Amino acid sequence: VRWPGGIRSAGIHCGIKRKRLDLGVMVADAPVTWAGVFTRNAAAAPCIAWSRACLGKPVRAVVVNSGNANACTGEAGAGAVLRTAEAAAGSIGCSRDEVLVSSTGPIGVPLPVDKIVAGLPLALGQLGGDPAPLAEAIRTTDTRIKLTRASVDECVIVGVAKGAAMLSPNMATMLTFLATDAALPQDLAQECLAEAVEHSFNRICVDACESTNDSVYLLSTNERRADVGRFSRALARACRHLAMQIVRDAEGGSKLVRVEINGAADDAVAVGLGRAIASSSLWRAAVHGADPNWGRILAAAGAVHRDLDLGRVELWIGSELLFARGRPCGSLEAATKAMEDDEFTVAVSLADGPGSAEILHTDLSVEYVSLNAFGRT
Amino acid sequence: VRWPGGIRSAGIHCGIKRKRLDLGVMVADAPVTWAGVFTRNAAAAPCIAWSRACLGKPVRAVVVNSGNANACTGEAGAGAVLRTAEAAAGSIGCSRDEVLVSSTGPIGVPLPVDKIVAGLPLALGQLGGDPAPLAEAIRTTDTRIKLTRASVDECVIVGVAKGAAMLSPNMATMLTFLATDAALPQDLAQECLAEAVEHSFNRICVDACESTNDSVYLLSTNERRADVGRFSRALARACRHLAMQIVRDAEGGSKLVRVEINGAADDAVAVGLGRAIASSSLWRAAVHGADPNWGRILAAAGAVHRDLDLGRVELWIGSELLFARGRPCGSLEAATKAMEDDEFTVAVSLADGPGSAEILHTDLSVEYVSLNAFGRT
Repeated sequence: VRWPGGIRSAGIHCGIKRKRLDLGVMVADAPVTWAGVFTRNAAAAPCIAWSRACLGKPVRAVVVNSGNANACTGEAGAGAVLRTAEAAAGSIGCSRDEVLVSSTGPIGVPLPVDKIVAGLPLALGQLGGDPAPLAEAIRTTDTRIKLTRASVDECVIVGVAKGAAMLSPNMATMLTFLATDAALPQDLAQECLAEAVEHSFNRICVDACESTNDSVYLLSTNERRADVGRFSRALARACRHLAMQIVRDAEGGSKLVRVEINGAADDAVAVGLGRAIASSSLWRAAVHGADPNWGRILAAAGAVHRDLDLGRVELWIGSELLFARGRPCGSLEAATKAMEDDEFTVAVSLADGPGSAEILHTDLSVEYVSLNAFGRT
Repeated sequence: VRWPGGIRSAGIHCGIKRKRLDLGVMVADAPVTWAGVFTRNAAAAPCIAWSRACLGKPVRAVVVNSGNANACTGEAGAGAVLRTAEAAAGSIGCSRDEVLVSSTGPIGVPLPVDKIVAGLPLALGQLGGDPAPLAEAIRTTDTRIKLTRASVDECVIVGVAKGAAMLSPNMATMLTFLATDAALPQDLAQECLAEAVEHSFNRICVDACESTNDSVYLLSTNERRADVGRFSRALARACRHLAMQIVRDAEGGSKLVRVEINGAADDAVAVGLGRAIASSSLWRAAVHGADPNWGRILAAAGAVHRDLDLGRVELWIGSELLFARGRPCGSLEAATKAMEDDEFTVAVSLADGPGSAEILHTDLSVEYVSLNAFGRT
């Protein structure tokens, strides 16, 4: 996997983390248009406000550190973002408004921005077409790097991501950096990205917690023509591929559950139902133990969908129909077998309309609790 | 603790559970008015619909079983409720519409209603003024029975409750049965009960899951005069006392956290913020490990309160101020000390208005996951 022409990146160790890579840069040879989707958390880190303010204007670079979220750090934190952008701009030879900034790691710890400033020349001296060092530099508790590549017409979309739940001591959650050579207006790129995020990163659930630093960036060199419809689908594929890697590498997770909702009044209702099931601590604990406790699925659904008509609900675990016509059916033994796989499907079908959604989630494991309880801040 | 005059109860073993008491009855010597608050879950058990339909009319009895929620059990489940009410009515000598029905236990398992019908004469033969056998009969994973007594003017309010999280194999959650001799119109009693529930059982959080069977009943013999305002406050006290016993006995819980929100725009905002914090898996895991990871508190708050102004937030753990004027302060060591107690306070203060709320929650423990993952259905 190589970045499209005109995009290069690097990842180095600057000293925020003890040993591992912790500083990444992504640089465009010339100003490029870009799109971005960010956390809506009111406690968002100052880098979010910084990058958001740059939306609509061409950029030259993204600087990202791991090991510190620089969130809830007050004016010092905002100053650190500015210093990072200024330092990178000075080295690259562009304006500071052309440098996006991103961070991931623990909240509320002062960011050692001097280390970033000191490390930038080294990082900028190592720029190359291989996205792997950047993917490595944004890792927190990820056990492996996450890469994707999709092609559409003559164009490519390449991306890296990190995310493994919001694990102590991090509010790590997810960052994604994508680049494409497809030529499309900024507003269309933004639309495509928002749509792709909605159907990928917004359809996975590890612990239902929302971070202060979630960001997805898409840089476009606009070198080659692409059909917008096909581009949009390819971008969605790339994002889904990264989202799948994130959920598979989830903090403490040992199972991947695909919740399929069908027959809802509309897609929004289906997404709401799927998320409620994926967020239920009780159901997620049952997944951990391969216990086909489908009552927890219906209770989670009924708590969020107050008009749910049980008489019209059908519920499957794997290929076993366990609830239909308002009452239990099927074999719990067969459902247990299905749940013993690393990956299985839960399907809930209403009879209300054409709405559907697919949500991916993991189990609530003893390991998740241990890591988040005892991995001291 | 004794029921007010005219109210008697009993608890027996009828065979739904292997050994423990599993059938309770509460009988009024003459028809009494009553108030009730029920789960709003769309997957509610048929006993909820049955009792709800009786609201507004005097009743003679409540029949309650543990060991089976009789939820998601279709027409057979609805038939079982009817048979229970009819059998009790036959023995007591009243109409079936004067018998309320309640259940708690696993979802989706056919209710062995024959055992209830066969057990009713024994239960009705043991009626007495001691609420303890009823409190015992409604236990599921509760480690102890829950009783309360409050007095107001010349009147008493006496109650029993069960609840210990929605623990596998149960959607057990909570049931409460209260009785008073205070004379007040049904609609006022209903208003007082709804208010008391809102400030007690709706302010505790064990795992943020809502059950199919939650119910709170208040029977009133209307024997003695009471001032409505004082009655309302006494009822709220009784409910809070029971709620506190429930949260202290929570499934797998080892800590009790009192989340105090102050300075919110209004009470509803404060309740929403408190619940978001109390429901955060990450924060609850940190509580388990006595890790003062206050970033998780702010992230949970910022995810639900999109206009939260960090610059005006103050956050304490115990008596240690950890965040103020938009940035960290205080000693994490002191906060850790506070969190090592079985019980501690988290205070979040905004500067938006007079709204406040107190939410009680427990930790997310390894034991909770183990019990709910491996306590097979």
